[in-house]
Amino acid sequence: MASQEILASQKSNKPSEEPETIPLETEPSTPLIPPSKYSNRVVLRTIIERSDGGVGLVGETMVIGGWVKSARVVRKDPPPQLQSEDNDGIVVRPGLKEVGCMDILQNQVPIFSSTSNIFDGSGNYPARAKLQPAPSKRVATSKPPPLILNLLVIDGSCVDSLQVTIEFSDDFPIRPLPTGTCILAEGVLSQLPAQGKHSIEFKVNKILHLGTVEDDKYILSKKRLPLETLRDYSHLRPRTTTVASFMRIRSASTFATHTFFQVNGFFSVEVPILTTTDEGFSAKFQVTSLSAKEVKKEEPKITGDTEALEVVKAAIKEKNNLIQQLQRSDSDREALLAAEQDLLKTKQLASQLEEKEKLRLETLKAANIPEDFFSQHTYLTVSGVLHLESYACGLGNVYSFGPRFLADRRLSTKQAAEMWMVEAEMAFSELEDAMNCAEDYFKFLCKWVLENCSTDMKFVSRHIDKTNLLEAMISSSCERITYMEAVNVLKKVADRKFETEPEWGTELTSQHLSYLVDEIYKKPVIVYNFPKEFKPFYVRLNDDGKTVAAFDMVAPTVGKFITGSQKEERFDLLNERINELGLPKEQYEWYLDLRRYGTVKHSGFTLGFDLMVLFATGLPDVRDVIPFPRSSGKVDN
Amino acid sequence: MASQEILASQKSNKPSEEPETIPLETEPSTPLIPPSKYSNRVVLRTIIERSDGGVGLVGETMVIGGWVKSARVVRKDPPPQLQSEDNDGIVVRPGLKEVGCMDILQNQVPIFSSTSNIFDGSGNYPARAKLQPAPSKRVATSKPPPLILNLLVIDGSCVDSLQVTIEFSDDFPIRPLPTGTCILAEGVLSQLPAQGKHSIEFKVNKILHLGTVEDDKYILSKKRLPLETLRDYSHLRPRTTTVASFMRIRSASTFATHTFFQVNGFFSVEVPILTTTDEGFSAKFQVTSLSAKEVKKEEPKITGDTEALEVVKAAIKEKNNLIQQLQRSDSDREALLAAEQDLLKTKQLASQLEEKEKLRLETLKAANIPEDFFSQHTYLTVSGVLHLESYACGLGNVYSFGPRFLADRRLSTKQAAEMWMVEAEMAFSELEDAMNCAEDYFKFLCKWVLENCSTDMKFVSRHIDKTNLLEAMISSSCERITYMEAVNVLKKVADRKFETEPEWGTELTSQHLSYLVDEIYKKPVIVYNFPKEFKPFYVRLNDDGKTVAAFDMVAPTVGKFITGSQKEERFDLLNERINELGLPKEQYEWYLDLRRYGTVKHSGFTLGFDLMVLFATGLPDVRDVIPFPRSSGKVDN
Repeated sequence: MASQEILASQKSNKPSEEPETIPLETEPSTPLIPPSKYSNRVVLRTIIERSDGGVGLVGETMVIGGWVKSARVVRKDPPPQLQSEDNDGIVVRPGLKEVGCMDILQNQVPIFSSTSNIFDGSGNYPARAKLQPAPSKRVATSKPPPLILNLLVIDGSCVDSLQVTIEFSDDFPIRPLPTGTCILAEGVLSQLPAQGKHSIEFKVNKILHLGTVEDDKYILSKKRLPLETLRDYSHLRPRTTTVASFMRIRSASTFATHTFFQVNGFFSVEVPILTTTDEGFSAKFQVTSLSAKEVKKEEPKITGDTEALEVVKAAIKEKNNLIQQLQRSDSDREALLAAEQDLLKTKQLASQLEEKEKLRLETLKAANIPEDFFSQHTYLTVSGVLHLESYACGLGNVYSFGPRFLADRRLSTKQAAEMWMVEAEMAFSELEDAMNCAEDYFKFLCKWVLENCSTDMKFVSRHIDKTNLLEAMISSSCERITYMEAVNVLKKVADRKFETEPEWGTELTSQHLSYLVDEIYKKPVIVYNFPKEFKPFYVRLNDDGKTVAAFDMVAPTVGKFITGSQKEERFDLLNERINELGLPKEQYEWYLDLRRYGTVKHSGFTLGFDLMVLFATGLPDVRDVIPFPRSSGKVDN
Repeated sequence: MASQEILASQKSNKPSEEPETIPLETEPSTPLIPPSKYSNRVVLRTIIERSDGGVGLVGETMVIGGWVKSARVVRKDPPPQLQSEDNDGIVVRPGLKEVGCMDILQNQVPIFSSTSNIFDGSGNYPARAKLQPAPSKRVATSKPPPLILNLLVIDGSCVDSLQVTIEFSDDFPIRPLPTGTCILAEGVLSQLPAQGKHSIEFKVNKILHLGTVEDDKYILSKKRLPLETLRDYSHLRPRTTTVASFMRIRSASTFATHTFFQVNGFFSVEVPILTTTDEGFSAKFQVTSLSAKEVKKEEPKITGDTEALEVVKAAIKEKNNLIQQLQRSDSDREALLAAEQDLLKTKQLASQLEEKEKLRLETLKAANIPEDFFSQHTYLTVSGVLHLESYACGLGNVYSFGPRFLADRRLSTKQAAEMWMVEAEMAFSELEDAMNCAEDYFKFLCKWVLENCSTDMKFVSRHIDKTNLLEAMISSSCERITYMEAVNVLKKVADRKFETEPEWGTELTSQHLSYLVDEIYKKPVIVYNFPKEFKPFYVRLNDDGKTVAAFDMVAPTVGKFITGSQKEERFDLLNERINELGLPKEQYEWYLDLRRYGTVKHSGFTLGFDLMVLFATGLPDVRDVIPFPRSSGKVDN
């Protein structure tokens, strides 16, 4: 028998002399919504985002927790009704009777030990009442109409807030609950008249916990702070409705990413962050386990001696050559003897230096001077592509989602020192496959965010991005043009002067790209087949010998956010390219192995995850969608 | 009209004099299984892991791609039948006629320009034939029975291989396809007699691509390499059946992690890798954008001068004190004068040094000597917990999945310098909630891996972990005991001497923990309420003032793999603890803000993701389940 049935049969068996029993639905033993599995409170989203707006839960006793978004003291009659306004603001509906401080004083004078605290000098009751906690005993007066504290409470689970009311009483004397106060309370949901935005309110019976706020020091007490200011408070800003919305969209995009790839048979691979492979292009961060002091202690000595020894060894080689020359040329014996004498002396010097070096190394060892953790120069990875390729050559289709690092000091709204990337790589695939996959993944992300973050997206498009680009993305397919075509199309633009003239052999600027996307094609554009000089050494050379099988995907507002390519699978051509660019060959031996043994055509792409979230939210600066953004000179926590 | 209908109508319209048209099902235009979406080949898993083992696809023409696991030349009659054996080995079934080199020579002598290549000295045909590519023209001889190349091919999508046969012909003359050769081929699936392991084989019509292998240089040509050896080839080892299996299980665990948390209403947060917050416990990696040379160029000078100036300033202070003492004590004037003279000199020195320092700084500035990217000492994060807490105090329930770093030089089979962690943090939660969530998540992972990696788990439990612990985990619940109880239980173990005696105030060793798990409770154990000295400063102090609300979760074979705690939400107690431990207070101001403004009870846990995969696979060394493991002195790529 199901628990519902058991309860129903129990009800019917109840004796008829007790008709006024509490209706079954409101019994605490059968809550309609379960509390959050791992805490004893109901998550607000599960109330507010029900299709009935929570009305079906009216009469339920439950515990809720959250933070005060705004608070106001009102008189109980007429029924209080608050309407929340854009971005943390608040509007009192007409007909609601707001309580001035004089009302409070007339009603509850004995509560206040001093009136100085509740006046702001102008004689007006401050917006957020700075009332002192009341003494525990009240002097009996003629019962005044009760005062009510009306709160809007959010818990971060959704955009909307819950209206919470607390009646002042001996248990809860008048006290300030400024913005940001944490409240955990038990109470009952009740219905509100239909005229307001909120259809339900939560009437508090018992406060279980209060986390107070020093109002005047709390940055978020100020309303409508610009995003730039919030960036300096990256540890506090997820408490604002706006940044919380960005971060929920970001979280949904993370799950969408894993879902897309896993459902399509890709395996997730965590590529390494620490690497010795220098792809030769970008400014990198170095990693050391030594403190600056330890670096100084050891390194200068080593270089000094080693360098001298190198010089002497080179001299020996030269002198040997000279002697051989002299021997061959049958010149005068004296010159030869002098040269031999000279060589002998240099050799003695070398052996002295070698002895010294040996001793020094032994001393170092004995003195236990620390060596660095890794024996080679170790960097933070700029891109996981090379490592991911080695897994594509084993598992087939693979993807990686992780942080990548760039020590680029230039300030940009589209770049941070630490950014998360999604990289995908597919065996038995060519350039077109990678373009198809990138486009499908992009559309999947757009669709997922629209479907799973509908209230967040409504909020964001109301406040930030009026157009909501995501809808348009799902229905339209990307325009695909070669680099050559892009240059030709841009050259024909007569009425417009670009800062850089579009020409074969010059990179397309962000101005060029946004003109293609916004003015010409009016949808995302994929540009492919770039001159080989623009792209990394590992991109596959096309048959023309000039261009390579790479593509960039460009979207409105965000610009280039996906780059992809077919990789050079032919050993000889890859090797040649490494030599051509003068890259440190020994670092790429492992990578060349992938072509030495069972090489396979493969392609893939990289999506800037933070840029994708930027695109979804329509924001201009990527630092607003990264939880703790890092840039030059900027790591605060 | 749908393509099915079009084809059907076309068929019915065909003239009746051609009754032997190919049946509709085998027409390439209507494949029963679609090719992999982003490459033109069918993924082997979609054939092999069908419930009918692929028999329903017999007669289908398709393209497959993969790598040769083993190869053998056989005569066509009787029908070839290979049976794959454990871990890349191969067994020829009785009745199969293996072809010796003499057979080949007798049949196709003109193919070989030199016989020296195909003999290994003993006169036997080598296991993997080192045959030379045949010249393109064959001399006509009496038609011999055709020779067939029998391959087992894997593509990394699943454990099992596909049997592939290639008939030697002018188009495909006899040539070696050693282990690791990449093959992309078009062909037809056909049924095999029921006696073998394989019920289907793939008959190649056309080879589309071959990625060759230099057999004698390829490490994976050797069979049954131990995992230790494979660690030196982290870029090649995902090509082995064994490591591929580990990595597929790892990938499934990644998706399971995101699924568990997202379905339970947690938001994903990417906490920063670069951080200035030093949690005061662990050996950390430092990050710099300067090369070692640049560090040397600038830093020694700065320290040298600054130190001298500091010393002189301290001396001035002392000398001032001395003069004051002398003045007070009314001692002889001469001593005072001398002291004053001395002070004057020191002050002159100080101003000289100050002048020099100023000049030096100006010179540095003028010379444009690089400054570091970040203005403060920046580390690779050891733990994301502190940053994650700030998001729990905004969004409620959050989790993070990312790499964490520890510069610990000790060698351990359970530790690497770079490991992936899953961290979860929940607002309005206490210790028990965190324990419940950790246990649920752990069981969810076990169940997910068993359900989604059944063939991988079968393979792994056959070869590595005979017991398959996952099954047992799902049904049993964890034993929960306090640290005190654990000590008492261990003390009572009379018949066993531990290396360290269990006692209040000493850490439980891994020996203690495994005794609890393996001998006493025979299931995973959660130990909680540890002495505060064992745990970080942020763990909540219990009412006894001695223990803190932390827990460790311990499982068989892997040991401690989850740690969790309720965080100290009370500002004063947290502040006191930071002072007590002498931690650099200024680094924690942002963290203290979380308690200053709307503090909330919260708890969470950290799971060592690599250790979880280690547990699932039953392996002893964590480096075998990390794609590119990093440890002291060990970064090769």
